[in-house]
Amino acid sequence: MHELDLGSPPLDGHERGKRRRIAEILAAARELLNEQAADEVTTSRIAARAGVAPMTIFNLIGTRDDLWAAIAAASLTEVSHGSSEIEDARERAHAIADQFMSAIISEAPVWRALISSWRDSGRVLEGEPTGALLSCFDDAVDQGHLSHEVDIRRLVATILSGFVGAAHQWAAGLISDRGMRRRASDLVDLALAAGRPDGPPPMWPPGS
Amino acid sequence: MHELDLGSPPLDGHERGKRRRIAEILAAARELLNEQAADEVTTSRIAARAGVAPMTIFNLIGTRDDLWAAIAAASLTEVSHGSSEIEDARERAHAIADQFMSAIISEAPVWRALISSWRDSGRVLEGEPTGALLSCFDDAVDQGHLSHEVDIRRLVATILSGFVGAAHQWAAGLISDRGMRRRASDLVDLALAAGRPDGPPPMWPPGS
Repeated sequence: MHELDLGSPPLDGHERGKRRRIAEILAAARELLNEQAADEVTTSRIAARAGVAPMTIFNLIGTRDDLWAAIAAASLTEVSHGSSEIEDARERAHAIADQFMSAIISEAPVWRALISSWRDSGRVLEGEPTGALLSCFDDAVDQGHLSHEVDIRRLVATILSGFVGAAHQWAAGLISDRGMRRRASDLVDLALAAGRPDGPPPMWPPGS
Repeated sequence: MHELDLGSPPLDGHERGKRRRIAEILAAARELLNEQAADEVTTSRIAARAGVAPMTIFNLIGTRDDLWAAIAAASLTEVSHGSSEIEDARERAHAIADQFMSAIISEAPVWRALISSWRDSGRVLEGEPTGALLSCFDDAVDQGHLSHEVDIRRLVATILSGFVGAAHQWAAGLISDRGMRRRASDLVDLALAAGRPDGPPPMWPPGS
């Protein structure tokens, strides 16, 4: 959501009101997810807490799965600042991975609920980290840390599956907070090591 | 379960009966998951289909999450044969990855149900592929395809998170059957490329 705030034309009152209501609905849902089991966080309870009609949630956000996706996106976007100033693309990739895992850990009850009760939880992390990592890996190519013959998009997609899996393993209690952060860091290492510019022919030529 | 069949001492009648009942319960649950939504596949329906008392399921297998885990393990173990004959460890790693994804695809309704309704679905693939991939990557070191200075266990754990994530993305409809198989193959490529024995110092020394 923060991306829309940068350089967008001024919003009219109607649009501002709509955004405020969306923010209130998401905040209410996150509060409730911190307080009770996800099954109990019904649309009508969220609506009551946010002071809107249940139908408003559907109109402004969509289905229950869309609501979970919006909560995930809101939780992740809040921490996606800061890393863009890191010059070295390899360090920045690690910072991005760590920030996202930290976002999940810092709101653990919400994320455990989202991941374990959300039917479409494969959508976790589909949105934000992809863009940040793509531009970071592009810079890594420019800085000579990744071969320019490697398909960056494919490299990012591959480690994102790892992030999704690590988040699920964490939600299932199979890996600790520290284990999830380390797994994310290892996935970044894996991509950087696999795509390093020396040695044998690259793994995946662009567009492969 | 097939591992127990190799070289174990002969089973007494009691043990044989227990195993037969476990197999019948798992078969009944898989049938029901192919027929109806996972929410509707209750323990009492599974018990009725298998011709046992509901309590027997708890006594022989455990909780509902344990039952899902046992179904997953049974589905995966059935396809884990065959690849062990492939001499080249890199080819074998790809075969192992592909067999597991094929197992999931071939019983898609069961797996979609398991992954989307199972609270602990991070446990997916925790069991079987790990062992097969560990011994395969050990062979890859012996064959000179992976550096002996790389922590194989950590390499396997990292790509397994990717398998878990890919299975969730597939269950959420974000990637196709073909996309999931390709993702698994890419994860194997990533590990082999990252751990290749040439070039700069290895990513992760053993025990790191």
